[in-house]
This record gives sequence, structure tokens and C-alpha cells, in this order.
Amino acid sequence: MKKNILHTGKTLSYESEIKIRFCEVDSMGIVWHGNYVKYLEDGREAFGRKFNLSYMEIYKKYGYMTPIVKIEINYKKQLFYEDEIIIKTTFTDTPAAKICYEYEIKRKSDNETILTASSTQVFMNKNRELELVTPKFFKKWKTRYL
Amino acid sequence: MKKNILHTGKTLSYESEIKIRFCEVDSMGIVWHGNYVKYLEDGREAFGRKFNLSYMEIYKKYGYMTPIVKIEINYKKQLFYEDEIIIKTTFTDTPAAKICYEYEIKRKSDNETILTASSTQVFMNKNRELELVTPKFFKKWKTRYL
Amino acid sequence: MKKNILHTGKTLSYESEIKIRFCEVDSMGIVWHGNYVKYLEDGREAFGRKFNLSYMEIYKKYGYMTPIVKIEINYKKQLFYEDEIIIKTTFTDTPAAKICYEYEIKRKSDNETILTASSTQVFMNKNRELELVTPKFFKKWKTRYL
Amino acid sequence: MKKNILHTGKTLSYESEIKIRFCEVDSMGIVWHGNYVKYLEDGREAFGRKFNLSYMEIYKKYGYMTPIVKIEINYKKQLFYEDEIIIKTTFTDTPAAKICYEYEIKRKSDNETILTASSTQVFMNKNRELELVTPKFFKKWKTRYL
Repeated sequence: MKKNILHTGKTLSYESEIKIRFCEVDSMGIVWHGNYVKYLEDGREAFGRKFNLSYMEIYKKYGYMTPIVKIEINYKKQLFYEDEIIIKTTFTDTPAAKICYEYEIKRKSDNETILTASSTQVFMNKNRELELVTPKFFKKWKTRYL
Repeated sequence: MKKNILHTGKTLSYESEIKIRFCEVDSMGIVWHGNYVKYLEDGREAFGRKFNLSYMEIYKKYGYMTPIVKIEINYKKQLFYEDEIIIKTTFTDTPAAKICYEYEIKRKSDNETILTASSTQVFMNKNRELELVTPKFFKKWKTRYL
Repeated sequence: MKKNILHTGKTLSYESEIKIRFCEVDSMGIVWHGNYVKYLEDGREAFGRKFNLSYMEIYKKYGYMTPIVKIEINYKKQLFYEDEIIIKTTFTDTPAAKICYEYEIKRKSDNETILTASSTQVFMNKNRELELVTPKFFKKWKTRYL
Repeated sequence: MKKNILHTGKTLSYESEIKIRFCEVDSMGIVWHGNYVKYLEDGREAFGRKFNLSYMEIYKKYGYMTPIVKIEINYKKQLFYEDEIIIKTTFTDTPAAKICYEYEIKRKSDNETILTASSTQVFMNKNRELELVTPKFFKKWKTRYL
């Protein structure tokens, strides 16, 4: 799945929870598949708030935008209205100038795995140029948290 | 409906069309009511592109943000997946420093009125302060278009 | 505001909380105005779960859909990313065959009123016909809760 | 990318167009990455309407739901408000009981490739059980269109 990106084996995880909204369910009675991208972002941002790596913290403190360049989602079970879910977000370290996460979403009531997913972000500076080298702040972050 | 806002009677209308998306339909099989706010914005922006009054034109050329301060929607019929609709957006002139629109959404296939609505926007300058006096550019716009 | 609907003066309120998501903020840096319709529904459904009046409970137990027929929103202040808000949802009793709510959204950090709103729902039976008389279950509900 | 799924080499493509909406742009001024899932569905449904393979046609005529089980998106460039895009949706034949599409989104103005993506759907019957064998209607569809 991550064939292009070398990983160091270091990881850091965080779990957050949400409840499915009425407007997130489609006409088949299940959560519309596109809404999961939002739940992944919820997980990533909850992780970011916990460990000081949110979009806005990176942008305001260090001047980098961190756009998503790749996302992959494997849907295993379906979610329904009012289901409560746990989003496990795992930072997966790589020597590349990238932020990689893996995700597992489980339903609270039966502990079923609903989906697994991964995302890759890059660093863009204020001129919207891609940073090819891992920014200093991020190296420090890794030293502190991993 | 517009009891607080005096109108001059001058209006300008534009019709645009959209098709209902799968992900806009809820678990009852009808368009989720919150999506109509998006269709109203579609209508307003189509009007804005036609008559040089879009959000971005006002913001980039004249430096004003034009946030919505009031919206009112009367739902009359329901829309279904793949319905094609016509959004009639009518600029309704007022002496106040406001942009007021009225809307009518019709289904193309049977010409049924699906909803009527109205919205009010104000002008905020770059310091995010409310403008109490109608901006010059907007007076000129009215002279040209109404 | 509610000129067409007679109210009895009986009310019942409930407060719920949410946190603003990244994807709910628009290119002006503020919550996109259409997202508030979702927050109102969040408030209404939290109320419904608390007091047994949610969409699904009404639909599954009693066979009525309860579509929104009117919504009115007055925007007073703006919300930003990661703001935490309190949605106060107030059931407002009427003798008509309608479910009426009023809403107030406040920011937790400074207790500012962000918006006030109201919504009206009607009852549709399984043949999608409008019920003109207040359903029995709803009369009982009022007796119990108001 | 499709390492688990054998392909026959037969394909069928269709191009559709959309315009980026204001509410699809995030606080960084670019289209929020989650919205692309909607554009892919727009492409898939435009393909389905053209070649009689839409969600609803499959569901109503043949009784199968076709949920997404995998989605992969590679983001290459960013989209901005009012950009017009072309979504090229390519059906990619496989002997498995699956519906596989590949996608390319281009900006009309400069013909830049904005993203590439792929999706996999399976067939579920009315009891919500997975169909392991390619349904007859789908074999016929392939004979007719590929």
C-alpha cells in the first residue's frame, strides 16, 4: 500500500470519537462513502491538537501548508445513522518530507472495523512551492514525540 | 417577509440550472433540506457572474466581504435524485447598505415551485467592520444594471 | 417572525455542543453560512434523542416523516475554525399540526450569540400526504413533556 | 495500484464537466480535498447515465446495491473557485464481480491534470449479502458496451 514510501517503523496513535449525523446518510440508508474523508480529517485534526501538529499550528507557526497528495480508503462495513465510531489515527514515520497517517475506524457498539485508510501530506511554503527536505520544525517534532 | 427592509421596487433576475446529485439525497429519499442553501448560493453566484456582482469580484475589486446576515426558506415540494431544477434569482433593490435577493426554485420536468427564499447580505470592509453606507461601487452598479 | 403560527407559550429547551471542523470554514476564513443548517439539525436531533422526538423515532414508531417546511436564520457574528459552540434548541408549542423550534447558537469561549433561527416541520404519513390534524402520539408527547 | 484485481484490458470512457462552487473551497483558498470524492461520483454517475449503469438503474432494475469498497486518489495540482474541470471516467473491465473505474480530472483552462483516482464497487443483493459471481445483467451490459 505504501510501496513508494520508506517507513522507519516509528508510530504514534490517537483515538477520537464522533457520532454519525442524519445528513451524512444517503438514500440507501448508509453513510455516503465521501463523508469518510471528513471523518479521517477529524481524526487527523484530533491527533494534531493532541500532539501539536494540526493544519493551523503548522501554517501559523511555521508557514507551511500541508496539502493531501494521496488518500486511500478500504471500506469494510457500513455505518448507519447515530452510530458512534472511534477513529484511530496513527502517524507513521518516514524519512521523506511527508506526513503519513494510517487510520482505522471502528463502530463502538460492536467493535467492528468499518474501514482502514491512509493519507500522505507534503509541505508547501508560503510561495506554494513544494519543500523537498523535511522542515526543521518537523524534525524537532519527531524527536520530541516519537 | 422583508418587513425591516424598505424596497425601491427595482429588480433584476437571472435563471440558472443544476441537476440533483446522489450525495444530496437523504435517507428519506429526498434532497436534504440543508442542501438548498447551496443551490441558492449557486443561483446567486450565477447571477453575480452574469451581472458582475459575485463574491470574489466584490472582494478583489472593491475590498468588501459580503456575508449573509439573514436567510429564509419556504419549502413547498420535495426534490429527488437526478431532478433538474431552475433557480430564479432576483436582486431586489433597497436603499439600505445591503444586497437582497429573492429566489424561486422550480423543477424543470413539471414546472412545480419547489421553494421560495430570500437572503440579505451586508458589506464588511477589510478590517471586518460593517459598512453602514452603501459603497460607491454598488451605487454605480445599480445605476448601470437596474 | 412566526406570524402565521399561534403559539401556546409552552416551551422545552436542550443544549448540545459541537466543535467547528476545518472543512466547514470557507475561503474567507469563516464558517460557510450553509453549514449552520447542519448545526441546527444537530441541535434538533440532540433534543430529539433527549426527549424522544428524533426523526427516526417518529418515523419508525409512528410512521410519520417530518420534513422541514420553513427555516429562518439570523446571522449575528462569525464562527472560526475550532470554535466550540453551544446550540440551544427550544421546542415552541403550537396548536397546529407542526413541530416548531427556535435556536440560539453561542460561542463557548466568549458567550457571544452567533445566530438565532427558527424551523417548522409538518407531518407526512407513509403515503407522503400532509397530516392536517396533530397526530395522537404527538399530543401524548406534549402532555408528557410540556 | 490494482494489484489484487485482474483486468481484461477492455475499457470505456466518458467525459463530463463541472464548475467549482464557492462552498467547496477551504480556508487555504483551494478546493477542500474531500470534495473530490463528490466529483468522482459526478463523473461515475454521468458515465452511468450515458451507458445505463447508474446506481439507481442497477438498484431499481436489477435489485443490486453497488457500494464503494475501495477508493484511491492521487492529488497532483490544486483547484480554485470557479475553475471548470473535465472528469474523465474510464470503466476498466475485470472478470471479478466488481465495477472498477479510473478517473482523470483536468482543468479546462490549461489542460493540467489535477488528479488521478480509481474506485472499486461490489454488488450486494437486497438482503445486503455480497454477490461473489458477476450478475447476469452486468455480463450482458459488458457484451453490449465493451
